[in-house]
Amino acid sequence: MSAFVRNQWYVAAYGTEVGRGLLARTILGEPIVFYRTTAGDVVALADRCVHRRFPLSESRLDGDRVVCGYHGFTYDPSGTCVSVPGQTRVPRTARVPSYPVAEQDSFVWVWIGDPARADNSLIPRAPWLADPAYTTVRGREPLAARYELLVDNLMDLSHETYLHGGYIGTPEVADTPITTEVDEERRVIYVSRHMADAACPPFYAKSTGIEGRITRWQDIEYHPPCLYLLHSRIAPAGVLPGADGTDPHGFHVEVVYAITPETEHSTHDFWAVARDFALGDQEVSDFLAENNRTVVLQDVEALDVLERVIQHEPDGYRELSVNIDTGGLAARRILEKMAEPDRAAAR
Amino acid sequence: MSAFVRNQWYVAAYGTEVGRGLLARTILGEPIVFYRTTAGDVVALADRCVHRRFPLSESRLDGDRVVCGYHGFTYDPSGTCVSVPGQTRVPRTARVPSYPVAEQDSFVWVWIGDPARADNSLIPRAPWLADPAYTTVRGREPLAARYELLVDNLMDLSHETYLHGGYIGTPEVADTPITTEVDEERRVIYVSRHMADAACPPFYAKSTGIEGRITRWQDIEYHPPCLYLLHSRIAPAGVLPGADGTDPHGFHVEVVYAITPETEHSTHDFWAVARDFALGDQEVSDFLAENNRTVVLQDVEALDVLERVIQHEPDGYRELSVNIDTGGLAARRILEKMAEPDRAAAR
Amino acid sequence: MSAFVRNQWYVAAYGTEVGRGLLARTILGEPIVFYRTTAGDVVALADRCVHRRFPLSESRLDGDRVVCGYHGFTYDPSGTCVSVPGQTRVPRTARVPSYPVAEQDSFVWVWIGDPARADNSLIPRAPWLADPAYTTVRGREPLAARYELLVDNLMDLSHETYLHGGYIGTPEVADTPITTEVDEERRVIYVSRHMADAACPPFYAKSTGIEGRITRWQDIEYHPPCLYLLHSRIAPAGVLPGADGTDPHGFHVEVVYAITPETEHSTHDFWAVARDFALGDQEVSDFLAENNRTVVLQDVEALDVLERVIQHEPDGYRELSVNIDTGGLAARRILEKMAEPDRAAAR
Repeated sequence: MSAFVRNQWYVAAYGTEVGRGLLARTILGEPIVFYRTTAGDVVALADRCVHRRFPLSESRLDGDRVVCGYHGFTYDPSGTCVSVPGQTRVPRTARVPSYPVAEQDSFVWVWIGDPARADNSLIPRAPWLADPAYTTVRGREPLAARYELLVDNLMDLSHETYLHGGYIGTPEVADTPITTEVDEERRVIYVSRHMADAACPPFYAKSTGIEGRITRWQDIEYHPPCLYLLHSRIAPAGVLPGADGTDPHGFHVEVVYAITPETEHSTHDFWAVARDFALGDQEVSDFLAENNRTVVLQDVEALDVLERVIQHEPDGYRELSVNIDTGGLAARRILEKMAEPDRAAAR
Repeated sequence: MSAFVRNQWYVAAYGTEVGRGLLARTILGEPIVFYRTTAGDVVALADRCVHRRFPLSESRLDGDRVVCGYHGFTYDPSGTCVSVPGQTRVPRTARVPSYPVAEQDSFVWVWIGDPARADNSLIPRAPWLADPAYTTVRGREPLAARYELLVDNLMDLSHETYLHGGYIGTPEVADTPITTEVDEERRVIYVSRHMADAACPPFYAKSTGIEGRITRWQDIEYHPPCLYLLHSRIAPAGVLPGADGTDPHGFHVEVVYAITPETEHSTHDFWAVARDFALGDQEVSDFLAENNRTVVLQDVEALDVLERVIQHEPDGYRELSVNIDTGGLAARRILEKMAEPDRAAAR
Repeated sequence: MSAFVRNQWYVAAYGTEVGRGLLARTILGEPIVFYRTTAGDVVALADRCVHRRFPLSESRLDGDRVVCGYHGFTYDPSGTCVSVPGQTRVPRTARVPSYPVAEQDSFVWVWIGDPARADNSLIPRAPWLADPAYTTVRGREPLAARYELLVDNLMDLSHETYLHGGYIGTPEVADTPITTEVDEERRVIYVSRHMADAACPPFYAKSTGIEGRITRWQDIEYHPPCLYLLHSRIAPAGVLPGADGTDPHGFHVEVVYAITPETEHSTHDFWAVARDFALGDQEVSDFLAENNRTVVLQDVEALDVLERVIQHEPDGYRELSVNIDTGGLAARRILEKMAEPDRAAAR
C-alpha cells in the first residue's frame, strides 16, 4: 500500500469542534494543537513545547497565547515563544511550527507539508455542507485502520449489499456493473453505478416517502487523497431528470467523506450526508443521522478487523481483484504516484 | 525451545463445537474457519477471502457455502470460489486452501502441513472419550503461553505437590522417583510413577469413596506433538490388579490433553477426564469437572506467568534440570527433531 | 538520555513494606524478591528459580526458606538451593543470586551491581525520616516514565507554578532565579531558590498557620542517581534564622525523593515529607499526606504523558534549555558519566 501523501490539504476538524479550548489532533503522524483566537481565527501549532516536548494541548490559553502547562513557556498564534520562566530574555530560536489552516464548507482544513506551498485554491470543495438549500447530518469516527482501507471500501459500493444489508444495501448494488473514469490531469476518479429498477432500501424509503421500486444512481467522485464525494440520486423507478437538467421528482443526497490519516494505522473518518429534501425536518435528520452512523460503524468495525488481519500478513501477500475493484485500483495507483516525491525525499 | 511441528494432526475442536455457524480458530498460526455442511461433514478453510483478506469467519453460511461478509465472494466446501459480485465469470485462481479434517474420539482433528501427506491412520487415539464404558468431563482453556511450557508441565507431575496441593497433589508425588522410557521409533515417551502407599487427595477420596491410604499409579504416554495421555489408577493401599490383568477393585481415570499451538506464544489446552466408575453419576461428574478445571486453571495461571518471564529473558538463558525432568527433556529432544524439516524448509 | 547507573545503592522499599510475605519488585530491570527472616533481617534474592525460571515471589516461605511454587525447589536466605523434588542430592550449582541489602532512614536499600563492591557507608542519608524530632508523611507511586524525567522534573521547581498551581506553586517560584552549584568530587548538585517575599501557598498556610506573605527557601541537594533532598524553609516574610544558626520562627520541611528505576521506561517514585512543626498532629499529617500525594500525582501524570511523547520522537529530537535547566543539565551530565563504565561493559 502507499505511504502518506504530503503537501496536501486535509480536514482536521469540523469548524464547530475548534473553539477557545485546546484541541489535540494527530494528522499524518504530526501532533497538532488547534484553537481559536479571541477574534475567531483558527490557529494550528505543533503540539510540542520547544523546551522539553511537553504537549501544548495539555496546557491552557491566556488570551490568544498558549501557556505550556509544565514550565510556562508561552507562544503567540504564530508559534513564536514570547515568554520563558526565570528570565526575561527569550531565546531567538524559541518557536514551534505553525500550520496553514483554512475554513471552508464547514471544515477546518490544515496543510501538511511545506507551508510555502499552501494554496487555498487547491482545497477541494463540498459546498452542500454549508449550503442552506441542504440539510446535513454528520459525524467523525475513529478508525483503527490505515486510510487506504477506507479508500478501498468507499471506491466500491458493492459491499453495501453484504456489509450494509438492511440499511443501504440491496442485491442490485452488487449485481449492477460499474463504469470507472480517471481524470489523470486533475487527479479525480469517477465511479458510477446506475440502477434503473432497484429495491428501495428502508433507509431511503423512510426518509423520502417513496413507495415501491426506485431508480438509484451512485456517482462517486474521489479527490485523492482527502475528499470523497458520493452524488446519490433516488427517484421512483423510471423517473429521470428533465432534458433541461432540472430534476424536481428526484431526491438528492450528497455523501461526503473526508479521509484524514491519523497515523500509519489509524484514520479520522469524517462523514457528512446532505439532502435536498425534508429540509429542516428534525425527525428525518435524526433518522438519517442514526442510520448513517450505523452504516459508518459497520465499515469501521470491518476495516478495524481487516487492519489487524493485514498487520499479520507476510509482506507481499496476495489479493485477487475483479471488475468492482477498478476504481479502488485506480485510486491506489494515483496515491502511490502522489506519495512518490515524499518517499524519494525520505530516502 | 523448539518450533512448530508441521505435517501433523492436531485437535482443532470438540466435535460438538462445530455446527452450522462459523468457528474461527488459529492453529499453528494459521487462521482457519470451521463449519458443518448440511450433511454434517466438517469443513475447514483458510479464514481469509482471496479478494481482500477479509476473514470468512466474520461472514455467513448459505447452505453449504460461505459468503464473504464484505463483498460476497462465495466459496463451496472445497474452498473453490463459485461467485463474485458484479460479474458472472469467476477467476480460475479464486480459491482458498482447504484443510484435511477427521472426527475421532470426540475431537475434530485438522492436518497442518502438506494435504497430500494427510493420513487418518496417523491420528493418535484416545478411545475412552467416546466409549460408553467411561464417563467423561472436559473443557478447553486458552493458554497465553507457548505449547512447550504445557508439555514441560505435564511430563513431570511432581509439580502437583506444589501447584495443586489440596487438589490432586500430595507429598508422595514429588517424593516418588519416576521411570522414563522413550520409544524412538514410534515416537512415544512413557513416564511412570507408582506410589505404593500414598495419601488420597480429596479429589479422589470424594469421587471414589475410598477411605484411608491408596496405591496410586500415574502412567504417562505422550505422543508428540499433540496428544498426552495419563493413565491413572487408584486403589486401596496394597490392592493390585489380578494376575490375569483384571482389576475389579481399581479405579481408572484416563486423563487426556490435546495440546494445540495457537500462535508462537499461545496454546489451545483441551483437557478431558474419563473414568470407569460412578458412571453417569452427575454429582460426581460435576465435582470432577469443577475440580479438574480448577487444576487446569492453576497450571494455566502459572504457565501464563512463566511465558511472560521467558519473553523477557535474554537468549540462551539457563535452566537447571534434575531427575524429574527426564521425560520433559526427552519430549523437547523429539519435538526439536520433528520440527527440523520445517525449519530447514524455512531457511 | 543516559542509561542505568549500576554499582549503586537504590531504595527498594520502605522497611514496613517488607515482612514475612514475598515482595516482588523489579529494580533496574532485575526481578528481585524481598522478605524478612524470622529474625527480622531483610533478604533479597533473584526472583527466578534456577530450575525453570518460575518467579520465587509466586511461592511461599517455609521458615526462612523460599519454596518454589512450581516444583518445590527450596532456597535458604543466601540463595543456596537446599532441596529439590524426587531426589536427595542437590546439584552444587543450584543457587540464585542474592543482593546486598541495608536498612537505613526507614528505607530498605539494595545494591545493584557487583556485590563485592557494596559498601554501606556509600548509602546517602535522609536522617529526618527516622528522627523523632520530625513527623513524616510518605508514599510510593508507580511512574510509567524513565527515571531521568523525574530527575529533570525535580531539579527545576519553576514547574510548581504551572503544574502545581493552587497547591505548592505561586508566581514567585517561576519568577525567582536560581543558583546552581556542582560538587564534582562528591557528586552532589545543589540548586537554590530563595524567595524573600512570596505569596504563601494554601498548602503551607494551612499547615503552618502563617498568615500573609512569607520568606520561602528551596535548597535542593541531589545525590545521583538515587536520592533527592529538598530542604524547604518557610517563615513570615522577613524573618531570618539567627546569626547563631538557630531558627525558632522558621518552619522546616525536608522533602525526600528516592528515585529508583524499575525498567527503562518506568520508575519507583518514593516520596516522603518530614516536618519539624505540628509534630504528631494527625490532622496536619492527613492534610499534608493528601496534598503532597496530589502534587506527586500531578507530576506522575505529566511525566507519563511526556514518556509516551518521547517514545514516539525520532532519535536526536531537539530540546531548548534555558537558565532554569542548569541543575537538570548538570544532573544529566553526571548521570551520563556514572553510566559510562556499564555502557563500556555492555559493548
